[in-house]
Amino acid sequence: MQRIEQELLARNDHLAGHNREWLHARGIVALNLIGAPGAGKTSLLEATAHRLDSIEISVLEGDQETDADARRIRAAGCKALQINTGAGCHLDAAMIDGALHRLEPAPGSLLFVENVGNLVCPALFDLGEAAKVVVLSVTEGDDKPLKYPHVFRAADVFVLNKTDLLPHVTFDVDACLANARRVNPDLEVFRLSARTGEGIDEWCGWLADRVGGRSAKSAEGAR
Amino acid sequence: MQRIEQELLARNDHLAGHNREWLHARGIVALNLIGAPGAGKTSLLEATAHRLDSIEISVLEGDQETDADARRIRAAGCKALQINTGAGCHLDAAMIDGALHRLEPAPGSLLFVENVGNLVCPALFDLGEAAKVVVLSVTEGDDKPLKYPHVFRAADVFVLNKTDLLPHVTFDVDACLANARRVNPDLEVFRLSARTGEGIDEWCGWLADRVGGRSAKSAEGAR
Repeated sequence: MQRIEQELLARNDHLAGHNREWLHARGIVALNLIGAPGAGKTSLLEATAHRLDSIEISVLEGDQETDADARRIRAAGCKALQINTGAGCHLDAAMIDGALHRLEPAPGSLLFVENVGNLVCPALFDLGEAAKVVVLSVTEGDDKPLKYPHVFRAADVFVLNKTDLLPHVTFDVDACLANARRVNPDLEVFRLSARTGEGIDEWCGWLADRVGGRSAKSAEGAR
Repeated sequence: MQRIEQELLARNDHLAGHNREWLHARGIVALNLIGAPGAGKTSLLEATAHRLDSIEISVLEGDQETDADARRIRAAGCKALQINTGAGCHLDAAMIDGALHRLEPAPGSLLFVENVGNLVCPALFDLGEAAKVVVLSVTEGDDKPLKYPHVFRAADVFVLNKTDLLPHVTFDVDACLANARRVNPDLEVFRLSARTGEGIDEWCGWLADRVGGRSAKSAEGAR
């Protein structure tokens, strides 16, 4: 099976390169959000859309079934397209290629890809994004970066979400961040609560910089 | 790829049948715990081990990396063996076959297999268990049974965990259970908090019945 997996990933990487060129040519900054079900990815996008109203945002939503998340994103004022994977556990570059031509994100805009809720498989599949963002909620435990290191190694940014629940759970923020940095010392880290808005300004400031400096960064950030 | 996937699953099912016979011959009741990272699977096993001290319990722990969970389970007084899957996203029947011979669970005992934290891929792989138990925490959202229906369809039991956090999150228990039963009307449901112990007695009572009536049930429950 190993050779077949390698061929599958090589074909995916080729298509991801095509997506990256397509996005770069239009000055679109694409971020691939990866996290477990319930990490708060959709809530983070809703909070981001409400705060960052100066930038055009569109979203590709991945789920096994339902279009619930795309409807939530549209209600927050963004263009959104739902991709249903059925039994599939991750989005791949071919799905993004097809969806980009249907969604038609505006030149110079910010595109989020919300991956299928899964902290494991999406780490292996490049979609052509400028950066991968791993989202973890404080309810999931501070040991997760060590237990699921592949996604933390592949990510550029780590969003620690649901900080409003810290008084109600056993979670050591410093230990979690130390674990994450052991796996990947270059991670950019944001601690926030999509629900209360705590920390959202810092995250949105980073996004705005990223879109503002997109010509330099989307080339440099390509991996 | 489809044919290769089918061959892979057929080979897995064959080995799962072998595991099921091996377990049945020894009167061992095996439960396959599936849930996202942070759903509270290990905490549930710790609480179960503390409460169910009349039954011998052993645990196979699946994680991408670290043996943290096996150490937690041993500290709770149970035999445990860690299986690390590396980049892998689920346990398969061959891993269980090998691990059973190393763990050597006692005849007439209860065996938990804690799958890799992932609400998606483990649903596809029969391990030879008597029943699949899907674990969801109230922090993950009441829409999850509809968005990840495969695992709820494959499961026999649904444990809704972390009910102690209900006052602090937006989660409609009735809506969640209705969603789960829309996908699978036959689900046995337990609402509990592994942390506070609320609802643990009912869950442990069900487990004790299962082990007590194992000769009839492990044959009947085989799928």
